[in-house]
Amino acid sequence: MSRLLDRAVDELAKLPGVGDRTALRLALHLLRQPTEGVDALSAALVDFRRNIKFCRRCNNLSDDELCPICADATRDRSTVCVVEQVKDVLSIEHTRSYRGLYHVLGGVISPIQGIGPSDLKINMLVDNVRRGEVREVILALSTSIEGETTGYYISRQLADTGVKISTIARGIGFGDEIDYADDITLVHAISNRTTL
Amino acid sequence: MSRLLDRAVDELAKLPGVGDRTALRLALHLLRQPTEGVDALSAALVDFRRNIKFCRRCNNLSDDELCPICADATRDRSTVCVVEQVKDVLSIEHTRSYRGLYHVLGGVISPIQGIGPSDLKINMLVDNVRRGEVREVILALSTSIEGETTGYYISRQLADTGVKISTIARGIGFGDEIDYADDITLVHAISNRTTL
Repeated sequence: MSRLLDRAVDELAKLPGVGDRTALRLALHLLRQPTEGVDALSAALVDFRRNIKFCRRCNNLSDDELCPICADATRDRSTVCVVEQVKDVLSIEHTRSYRGLYHVLGGVISPIQGIGPSDLKINMLVDNVRRGEVREVILALSTSIEGETTGYYISRQLADTGVKISTIARGIGFGDEIDYADDITLVHAISNRTTL
Repeated sequence: MSRLLDRAVDELAKLPGVGDRTALRLALHLLRQPTEGVDALSAALVDFRRNIKFCRRCNNLSDDELCPICADATRDRSTVCVVEQVKDVLSIEHTRSYRGLYHVLGGVISPIQGIGPSDLKINMLVDNVRRGEVREVILALSTSIEGETTGYYISRQLADTGVKISTIARGIGFGDEIDYADDITLVHAISNRTTL
């Protein structure tokens, strides 16, 4: 009917969880907003996608070379919590109970999906540990075969560094994802971590 | 954590039905897309919002002065189907069983929401009817008090024109919305319209 509408709906329908009907609803919603509002949304998305960086120490999302957590001198630099994704950092930060640093792997080892150790930021983690400072590495990975495999691989890579390696307590149900856990479960899981 | 991420999430969370968690999921999804994909989404939204027009005859969304339906010489110009919203045009067009024109009111009369007849494109409809051509006006409005009131108001405004006025059959449940009806119900409702 309208090429402009069709294009907006088609682009919105590419978002995960957004079907044609929802895309149409979103487009018609945007039509009722001031043009400045739509400009702000578009600019924020483009700006985010084009200018976001990955922290050169921990691979977390960052506006600068170092993310605010790595740049924060008050954080405990002797503890590194290894997570799969940026979402996991946000979930753990939300509990306000962890004061160490993070390391974002960017996924887990998954032969089925063709993801090997070299596809993840594992070498970056090992280099950080070898550089000194770190005394404990906490593995906060999924309780899945892939998560376990990745944890095992990392612990093998770090074996000769003498660093303490722990995993968060199994307070999180098998098959559940870290970023869906509630704060209390997460606090519990972090404080009850077990030494490997 | 990241100002760029926060801004993208904040803007996405303004969309209807999108909470903070979904907004974060959408932002991180965009991060995994090529920059060109995000540029295309943003451009489509801005282009839609800034350049979409309203058809000068029927008030439907349009890329040009006249929408493709009003500009289509093969459509039956003697029948006009009056709907509340653009979504309703799309739903009825989807049935491929209606060959007349439309008129998009842009809402219904609702004293509670402070929407009076002058806030809707009712005069535009009356002018179109007075100009000749139209022989039947089909009211396809919500089966709500507001929809009924609006239909009654329109039929009064058109009373002295001698045009036939009908409403779509009450095949649609009271309180249901036109754009959620299935095709069969809609086809039934249009073909069994009753003369007022």
